[in-house]
Amino acid sequence: MEETIRRFKAHLAKMHAYEHALGVLYYDAETVMPKAGGEGLGGTVGVLSEESYRLSTAPELREMLKTLLENRAALDDVTRREAEELSENMERMEKIPMEEFVAYQMAQSEASRVWHEAKPANDYAAFEPHLAKLIDYQRRFAGYMRPELPAYDALLDQYEKGLTMQTLDAYFADIRAKLLPVIHAIAKRGRKIDTSFLQKEFPIWKQRQLSDYIMQVMTIDRACCAIGEVEHPFTTGFNKRDIRITTHYHADDLLSSFYSVVHEGGHALYELNTGDDLFCSPLGTGASMGIHESQSRFFENIIGRSEAFLRFVFPKMQELFRAELAGVTPHMLYLAANRSEPSLIRTEADELTYSMHIMVRYELEKKLIAGELSTKELPEAWNALYREYLGIDVPDDTRGVLQDSHWSGGMFGYFPSYSIGSAYASQIYAAMQKDIDVPALVGKGELAPVVDWLTEKIYRFGCMKKPAELIENACGVPFDPTYYTDYLTKKYSEIYGL
Amino acid sequence: MEETIRRFKAHLAKMHAYEHALGVLYYDAETVMPKAGGEGLGGTVGVLSEESYRLSTAPELREMLKTLLENRAALDDVTRREAEELSENMERMEKIPMEEFVAYQMAQSEASRVWHEAKPANDYAAFEPHLAKLIDYQRRFAGYMRPELPAYDALLDQYEKGLTMQTLDAYFADIRAKLLPVIHAIAKRGRKIDTSFLQKEFPIWKQRQLSDYIMQVMTIDRACCAIGEVEHPFTTGFNKRDIRITTHYHADDLLSSFYSVVHEGGHALYELNTGDDLFCSPLGTGASMGIHESQSRFFENIIGRSEAFLRFVFPKMQELFRAELAGVTPHMLYLAANRSEPSLIRTEADELTYSMHIMVRYELEKKLIAGELSTKELPEAWNALYREYLGIDVPDDTRGVLQDSHWSGGMFGYFPSYSIGSAYASQIYAAMQKDIDVPALVGKGELAPVVDWLTEKIYRFGCMKKPAELIENACGVPFDPTYYTDYLTKKYSEIYGL
Repeated sequence: MEETIRRFKAHLAKMHAYEHALGVLYYDAETVMPKAGGEGLGGTVGVLSEESYRLSTAPELREMLKTLLENRAALDDVTRREAEELSENMERMEKIPMEEFVAYQMAQSEASRVWHEAKPANDYAAFEPHLAKLIDYQRRFAGYMRPELPAYDALLDQYEKGLTMQTLDAYFADIRAKLLPVIHAIAKRGRKIDTSFLQKEFPIWKQRQLSDYIMQVMTIDRACCAIGEVEHPFTTGFNKRDIRITTHYHADDLLSSFYSVVHEGGHALYELNTGDDLFCSPLGTGASMGIHESQSRFFENIIGRSEAFLRFVFPKMQELFRAELAGVTPHMLYLAANRSEPSLIRTEADELTYSMHIMVRYELEKKLIAGELSTKELPEAWNALYREYLGIDVPDDTRGVLQDSHWSGGMFGYFPSYSIGSAYASQIYAAMQKDIDVPALVGKGELAPVVDWLTEKIYRFGCMKKPAELIENACGVPFDPTYYTDYLTKKYSEIYGL
Repeated sequence: MEETIRRFKAHLAKMHAYEHALGVLYYDAETVMPKAGGEGLGGTVGVLSEESYRLSTAPELREMLKTLLENRAALDDVTRREAEELSENMERMEKIPMEEFVAYQMAQSEASRVWHEAKPANDYAAFEPHLAKLIDYQRRFAGYMRPELPAYDALLDQYEKGLTMQTLDAYFADIRAKLLPVIHAIAKRGRKIDTSFLQKEFPIWKQRQLSDYIMQVMTIDRACCAIGEVEHPFTTGFNKRDIRITTHYHADDLLSSFYSVVHEGGHALYELNTGDDLFCSPLGTGASMGIHESQSRFFENIIGRSEAFLRFVFPKMQELFRAELAGVTPHMLYLAANRSEPSLIRTEADELTYSMHIMVRYELEKKLIAGELSTKELPEAWNALYREYLGIDVPDDTRGVLQDSHWSGGMFGYFPSYSIGSAYASQIYAAMQKDIDVPALVGKGELAPVVDWLTEKIYRFGCMKKPAELIENACGVPFDPTYYTDYLTKKYSEIYGL
């Protein structure tokens, strides 16, 4: 038994090594690789993915897992959960033929490269065949993994266990019913919020200093966390001692990168504070995409867009941008940071209209995966839904269907977790408020108690608990989305004087 | 036979993938990885190195190589040379026990991490046990690989085939005999060269723009070549479409990074212009360390420190640093860029005294590998040789024995190739001058004909020719170091009015 555990841990270390290397290759490709480097990258990613796949479906691993799970009671908690996770994963993976998996990885790498060129060029036609290929792979993979489920449910389940179209259809209908009235009220009778003072040139080399400052306020240890620059910001990590966030600086927009850093910083805090006992273990990461997004959106919206936070960071902003922010008060900044208006770009959407963007993607993904919509028809369908849900016309694919990196990364079923994450975040915030006075602490720039609370209730567990368990553990009650609609209704009614 | 070739090429692609991944991990660690990331990196490097080692010594590869080399006449040139290279490499590798090789890779990764902390902290004691370990490994590896040779000759041979202590002892004695008189004459009766106008603050964000400009003048295609920032500049590449140079910016020194970029740019041009038929082949890289250094030092010294080049780039420098360079003329800059004075730091040494720095390292490496000098005694021996060869006192280990990254990277026997490279470069320059008027072209900023000449004579061959063949191919005569001493004597006699 001891020998099996030793061999199992050695096997995990090997699997971790391939994921680590593939992760660094991906991060490097997005941040610093010269463009033509993509030509040689696909082959390398293919070779490493093949070995990674082989390791996670290896007969010797199956045999070790069998021994371990037959002796479940004799295992420590971490080893037991590792064995359970890998066993589930193995079952899923074994159903995908290896050659198809490797071919998919290469197709994905190529699609990503093409998307990087197609987006700025407004060239959906160039990207379309690659997207069609990825959807085809994903649909087939869904069928292999969970033949008993509709394909899109199988994909949703990968990112948030147990999430289904049935739940989401009801969830979005509810949010739409409660939040659309607020959105309409703002359009009709909300006060006008001035954001003109943000339309200036904010030199990027100074914005970089602001990023450093925000990361420091957020208690992010830079010895364990780097920041890179990319087209579409994301966070990745290889273990709790090496996390990478990214941002995109716009010279004419101060708050875009500011909130990217706060958002990605939330993801980073989760990873940085997983338990030491899970270092380099497959369990040493976030429990699910939804829980991960709850943390990024908690920091971005609930903390980062609070008046307390903006009052605290304002002096630093003034120091960096004295001339640009002349005559601006923290309250003006607070209102500007929370202005709500239907818009084109998801990542720059306000907190209130954000879920409408997710709904567009949700409806389209459902149809793409079900084969009810072709990739050729996609831009038109995208534009129609933006008109329907957000009331606006999409002027080009750059700001339309090409705006997100997710689909070029083969991620279908991921978007809904952003919305679910926001709902989790509101509920977590309500629970946290019972223990500590968050606005008072944030107003003094003391985020450590907030991070400590989250570490105690959520972060340290990594994947040791399932999403539903974590929410109940942190909040004392099961998941309840009304915290979300209550929070938004209250916040936006105050801001807009409804 | 066709099937063997197909399998051989697939095996090469796999080997290439691991080298590619390990290369990116290394580059990432040096440029962007957060410091604590080193803790999890060693394990990953160990796993990939083990597989990389397994592939290069795999029984199926041995059998393929046997078949291929028995049918040598039926192979195209590239496949034949690939088989020869790998066969030699395999013989060498097979002599190193796998566990020792893997343990070495991890020890090297750790030594590198420690050196990064020890250098700024002037803490040789922290680095010393790691260095001792690496030397021990290298000495043993030398014995495994070439038991018939003195250990240091075996190490030299890795970087420059056929190079021996016998050759180098004579070579350095000759250089010392011819160049020391010039160095002494400058000290006694050379004109004083003013460099005070370089002791200013040159903002790093502007220096970054200068780097972009220099790379453009050098005809370096940025779609295939990135630039990163590190402690000690180096160049790495994964294939001709993805080359990475690095530099280190000093806010109070304009020329340090400037010449790092020109130097590393020379390495990059070589890799970028290897033949398309060698893309992702093990032959698609420089022929040897000496030839590689000949290119970096050709661009750094012969082109980059020529009056023609500095006259051409001067307007751009003025544009970026108008206030800082007020009253400076291109000729003043030329003299300043070529000021010769014994100094502490190899990478910032002038062209004339540079080989003295190499001689120090050469003498020390010989003794360390022979076991005639311990790592504990090394700083004292280093300081003594700097006094003897360069006439200066070393104030601390940061600027002494800890200054270079090579030893922490396990590279012993590499340094002499810098000096040999300079000698190659002078001979190549003399041959090039017969075909094209280099200073006239450089004065107009037209470096393309220079790069084309080098591509035609050297670059495109990659590893298809051996160093000695390449020199004879480019120059029409075998290697002759007197071009080097002639070139330096002439250049420095003029500059100093001897």
